[in-house]
Amino acid sequence: MGRINLAALAFALAATSLAAQDRKPEPVTPASVIAASLPSEWTAIEPSDLLVMDLAPDARGKPRRVIIQLSPPPFSKGWVGNVRTLAKARWWDGTSVYRVVDNWVTQWGDGDHDTKKARPLPSGIAKVPEADYTAPLPCKVYLFQKKVIKEQCDPVVTPLDGIDPYVIKGQAGFAAGWPVAFALEGSGNRIWPAHCYGTVGVARDPSPDTGTGAELYAVIGQAPRQLDRNVAVVGRVIEGIENLSALPRGKGPQGVYDDPSLRVPIVSVRLASELPAAQQPRFEYLAGDSQTFADYVHVKANRNDAFYKAPAGGIDVCNVQVPIRRASAN
Amino acid sequence: MGRINLAALAFALAATSLAAQDRKPEPVTPASVIAASLPSEWTAIEPSDLLVMDLAPDARGKPRRVIIQLSPPPFSKGWVGNVRTLAKARWWDGTSVYRVVDNWVTQWGDGDHDTKKARPLPSGIAKVPEADYTAPLPCKVYLFQKKVIKEQCDPVVTPLDGIDPYVIKGQAGFAAGWPVAFALEGSGNRIWPAHCYGTVGVARDPSPDTGTGAELYAVIGQAPRQLDRNVAVVGRVIEGIENLSALPRGKGPQGVYDDPSLRVPIVSVRLASELPAAQQPRFEYLAGDSQTFADYVHVKANRNDAFYKAPAGGIDVCNVQVPIRRASAN
Repeated sequence: MGRINLAALAFALAATSLAAQDRKPEPVTPASVIAASLPSEWTAIEPSDLLVMDLAPDARGKPRRVIIQLSPPPFSKGWVGNVRTLAKARWWDGTSVYRVVDNWVTQWGDGDHDTKKARPLPSGIAKVPEADYTAPLPCKVYLFQKKVIKEQCDPVVTPLDGIDPYVIKGQAGFAAGWPVAFALEGSGNRIWPAHCYGTVGVARDPSPDTGTGAELYAVIGQAPRQLDRNVAVVGRVIEGIENLSALPRGKGPQGVYDDPSLRVPIVSVRLASELPAAQQPRFEYLAGDSQTFADYVHVKANRNDAFYKAPAGGIDVCNVQVPIRRASAN
Repeated sequence: MGRINLAALAFALAATSLAAQDRKPEPVTPASVIAASLPSEWTAIEPSDLLVMDLAPDARGKPRRVIIQLSPPPFSKGWVGNVRTLAKARWWDGTSVYRVVDNWVTQWGDGDHDTKKARPLPSGIAKVPEADYTAPLPCKVYLFQKKVIKEQCDPVVTPLDGIDPYVIKGQAGFAAGWPVAFALEGSGNRIWPAHCYGTVGVARDPSPDTGTGAELYAVIGQAPRQLDRNVAVVGRVIEGIENLSALPRGKGPQGVYDDPSLRVPIVSVRLASELPAAQQPRFEYLAGDSQTFADYVHVKANRNDAFYKAPAGGIDVCNVQVPIRRASAN
């Protein structure tokens, strides 16, 4: 909900503020925690870190826009650079969404990339090594215990208390507003983005290929954490995921649309910073080192509002869903 | 994949058996493990435990069928009984799918249930207490360590090695082919179904209401494990989930379709055992106490085939996806 269902969040916030006029104190919910946040706890997302993808309108003529936030350093720098190059070259304009697998991914780019009709890539596309699926962990790690622990490094890492089954000898948490996992690997600590719902990654051929960033996918099901450290994560869908997740599932091999007429045309993909200033979408995320974020995680892991009888007492990193919202333009 | 994408699984199996004729040994994959299973490791699902829901055909005239397996004892017995009563009364015929929330649930039943136009329930609907969200754990628990440990009880419980963040003082695993969690609660061990992708649960009002089973939902996103022990799980979608997950998202409050014309009509819901014998769908699941299931979990948690560079070394209970497949009619 939270980050990929802003409409529902907005509704919940409205309901909470109305209810605040009643006498009974309202139970604490994730929405009420967010409603009480301070403006200073939110971090703006730069338009240069947003990708705006416009698909052809749907059968009823409704516009379909998908907004993707690109992963920040130190994650996947080579591939994110390629994605910027491809967007600036307008390479995706006229390509399509060509693969949809239920509870797995929706994929787009050049549907003919493995044929003689493949669209040539622009110059300047880097070949990135597998070693870059992870990055050095820049901070010493503190346990997350309902209080904020700041570190003199960038990004600040906020661990989630609890064991991540995908990193038996490591941890999961948040860095720069992104779900991450980290562990001791070889001679040092390494950190990497976690594959969650809405994560955007780089499709590729078998290892050691690492892909270019031209063929991308978004996760539309249960977090496929087995892809962590095996595929480059370059971003996440922060608005319009339903334009990818509610598409018909492909019936060809590996969920590719067997009938090319089912492909959804991509009209354009632009960095938001390339759009006229007035058209640039503005977003902000709740900083991982804020008190409100700490409270939000605690409340999500221990729901005890009117709907809940048995608080879970825990939560996985992908179900936290870092709050992201529209910000007013400056 | 696995259980909810049988077409993809069949494709993978075919590819594996062709490849077996080559000289190079194929890497072990979840699909190759399943391909090598013994018929005796599969357990038939009784037609009386299947619900067949037919939605109105889609815009292209394509039929839309959803097949749901009902939860076995000891889980949610009161609510499952209600679901059987409702199906036998043909109560859902003429109702609709009326709510779709991205990365959350698709819900169906009487879209007017909270209005004066509410459809009366048939007689014999039980009111079930919250205590029944969990059941006594019938077995002593052994750790799952790549070997099969049988217990003289029904259902056999197969724990998953690793800590479930949703049950800090407990465990996750499988019972009778279903993902479950269990923990010491009060004076004894309790077990309950885990909310995973495709899980079917009973919509309800705030606690202490427990719902009847008339309004149902299917999970279409990241496993909402916070609902465990808070909502009755009555089944799981085993075929046709895309007819629920690929529907347009609702734009009204809480994702309800604000325009009633968007509702998807439900033509009929029947227990498969009510259909003529030749039309009864046949399914089987891979038994949790089989050696192949143990191998399957191990391989899924440690992918090292051609696509993978870094095996995860762990897996969460909802990503295991118990293998379920069509069986030939007897």
